[in-house]
Amino acid sequence: MIPDISTKLSLSAKSMKRSAIREILKLLKDPEMISFAGGLPAPDSFPVTEIKEISAMILETQGASALQYGTTEGEAELREMLLKRHNEKGLSVGHENLAVSTGSQQALDILSRILINRGDYVICGLPSYLGGLSAFNLNGAQMEGIPFDENGMRADELEKALKKLKDQNQIVKFIYTIPDFQNPAGITMPDSRREEILEIASKYDLLLVEDSPYRDIRFEGKEQKLMYEIDTEGRVITLFTFSKILAPGFRIAWILANPEIIEKFLMAKQSADLCSPVFVQKIIAEYMKRGLLEKNLVNTISLYKSRRDHMLGCFEKFMPEGVKWTKPEGGLFLFITLPEHMNADDLLELAVKRNVAYVKGSVFYCNDCGKNTMRINFSYSDPDTITKGVKRLAAVIKESM
Amino acid sequence: MIPDISTKLSLSAKSMKRSAIREILKLLKDPEMISFAGGLPAPDSFPVTEIKEISAMILETQGASALQYGTTEGEAELREMLLKRHNEKGLSVGHENLAVSTGSQQALDILSRILINRGDYVICGLPSYLGGLSAFNLNGAQMEGIPFDENGMRADELEKALKKLKDQNQIVKFIYTIPDFQNPAGITMPDSRREEILEIASKYDLLLVEDSPYRDIRFEGKEQKLMYEIDTEGRVITLFTFSKILAPGFRIAWILANPEIIEKFLMAKQSADLCSPVFVQKIIAEYMKRGLLEKNLVNTISLYKSRRDHMLGCFEKFMPEGVKWTKPEGGLFLFITLPEHMNADDLLELAVKRNVAYVKGSVFYCNDCGKNTMRINFSYSDPDTITKGVKRLAAVIKESM
Repeated sequence: MIPDISTKLSLSAKSMKRSAIREILKLLKDPEMISFAGGLPAPDSFPVTEIKEISAMILETQGASALQYGTTEGEAELREMLLKRHNEKGLSVGHENLAVSTGSQQALDILSRILINRGDYVICGLPSYLGGLSAFNLNGAQMEGIPFDENGMRADELEKALKKLKDQNQIVKFIYTIPDFQNPAGITMPDSRREEILEIASKYDLLLVEDSPYRDIRFEGKEQKLMYEIDTEGRVITLFTFSKILAPGFRIAWILANPEIIEKFLMAKQSADLCSPVFVQKIIAEYMKRGLLEKNLVNTISLYKSRRDHMLGCFEKFMPEGVKWTKPEGGLFLFITLPEHMNADDLLELAVKRNVAYVKGSVFYCNDCGKNTMRINFSYSDPDTITKGVKRLAAVIKESM
Repeated sequence: MIPDISTKLSLSAKSMKRSAIREILKLLKDPEMISFAGGLPAPDSFPVTEIKEISAMILETQGASALQYGTTEGEAELREMLLKRHNEKGLSVGHENLAVSTGSQQALDILSRILINRGDYVICGLPSYLGGLSAFNLNGAQMEGIPFDENGMRADELEKALKKLKDQNQIVKFIYTIPDFQNPAGITMPDSRREEILEIASKYDLLLVEDSPYRDIRFEGKEQKLMYEIDTEGRVITLFTFSKILAPGFRIAWILANPEIIEKFLMAKQSADLCSPVFVQKIIAEYMKRGLLEKNLVNTISLYKSRRDHMLGCFEKFMPEGVKWTKPEGGLFLFITLPEHMNADDLLELAVKRNVAYVKGSVFYCNDCGKNTMRINFSYSDPDTITKGVKRLAAVIKESM
């Protein structure tokens, strides 16, 4: 008897969808295709030569431990370097606040697992990072989306939603935010808004997950405070990653949190993958020790800034009237809003035919809205490609207007 | 207000325990300590020189893609090499049957997530690999343990248990087995037993998870069939890993399964960590391409065999009467059974005081039995250390008799 797999699946498995972004990345193998879809760092930003030298050195001097199992909390050298960097930036954190994860995606997933029971609510932005939404979804969360203004998640709307959910006796576990150069909206919350949101989190006794992959990639404007820093009560959990500031292929990220959260996080991580890859953790630790991270960041920022500027210039030049876009102070993404009546979901097929790709904005909305939006990555493509791609995209939009 | 984290936790988080093995590993930093506790490969088995050369070559020739995001299903080169290896061994599998995972632990966890609803049953051996039990537990499974005889999981007891659970209207999702050199019991199931177990799985329409980390490390005796190979219905999911045959620090493993399972597995993996570390996947692919895996396996097998033989010799010489142990045909572990009235859990404290450590066997029993058993690793320590450690352990046991 051939087993009917559908009868074997868990509720989680039944509700899963393949990631729209990962699926689109697979379609883009045509060399003629210009993709603004992925959230890929520029390969030019990878310090290959230094990594090569450090890899050899690590294997030479500590090959046996680099290839062995490591500890669940992360390699000691890397943990030291991370704490040192945070402390130097004025953040008072210690070993009890830190856990290494296998990419930020694992952190999002593990946090969901240790916090969410099926049916619990997570508050997220409209729009919000798809990988976050999919982790919450996999873990059975219901999502309540909060609209944005130019300063990010609206405090009044947040309070309204929380009041409503409270009246309905719903359990809300945490608020999910990306305060710096939000993915996909490109918006940065000013300190004042961060404080407002945190006050509401405190009033309703909620945890707050601050996803901060792009924070170090700021082109201009004043650095705003980490919500982790503003928080005096231990309710903020902040996620950082090397994927956007060094190399996503290493799959190394880290979180800062209340020691009780860290304790549970590590227990879940033991069951999830025992430990994160050791060899690459040691490479990163040595890379940081040599001061190369900050040096490379300067290059990455300047590279991405020039690409953002170039893309904004192309938008000005080629986009038809009625199309709006964000001007992010950092990060990797622009967010386009088409006139209300247009549908960027439908447009994607035509765009791909014309060899240009984006992510339809609707996938970032937990409430099925955002049909007239698209996320555009500017970090991956070189200026000539950006020009060509924006021309193609503008033509597709114009044609469909 | 300081949040009360305990009110925020999910049911999974509340039921989690730290892994007894990982906890013990942390206690063992005393250089005088001889640890038979971990499941660590011998550092001498790591091909550091080759890895160093290959790492440099990968970064030189494909640095940009080695450091970039990869695909969820795993790097193409690695997938090719894995399929080639399986096909050469007569297993008919294709891309639709294969997924790479971040260590086998991730595979155990993801399979649990896509198959188990809270309260569903998993059938496991008495004893069974702790990492499996903890993944099932994290995902809300109840466990039913099946006693062993010298051929592994007893078919009659399995059928009895399944009948009982069926009568109780319980949902059973899969049987978890480690057919080769079982961890911790060291037992290998003969083909006949594998067939019997599979017939029962088919009769009760269950999936079967075949965890196969040690299969390639066979010292003697005839290789038995993979249950994946015996299965004609698509109900076996088999887990393999590079942790025991190359380097656990890479965190790379893979599974073979029915395409429907693979599809769901990959969707869940997208939410769990997007993709496994890319750089190390490319290193492994090149390592295999150069034929080094099989070459290194010969060395590893001969090293571990000599250590097993040495440890068995020491047991014969030093262990007091009444102590029994397994003589595994491969793998990394021996399993000791003390006289019934003795308690290996209590003994551990004394043993650690005398600078020798093991894992108490009871942690491998989902039914709280096995108090008079211990798991002993023979792969990690060199012969002199083994002699010293067994002497210490034998003395502790004798003293407590």
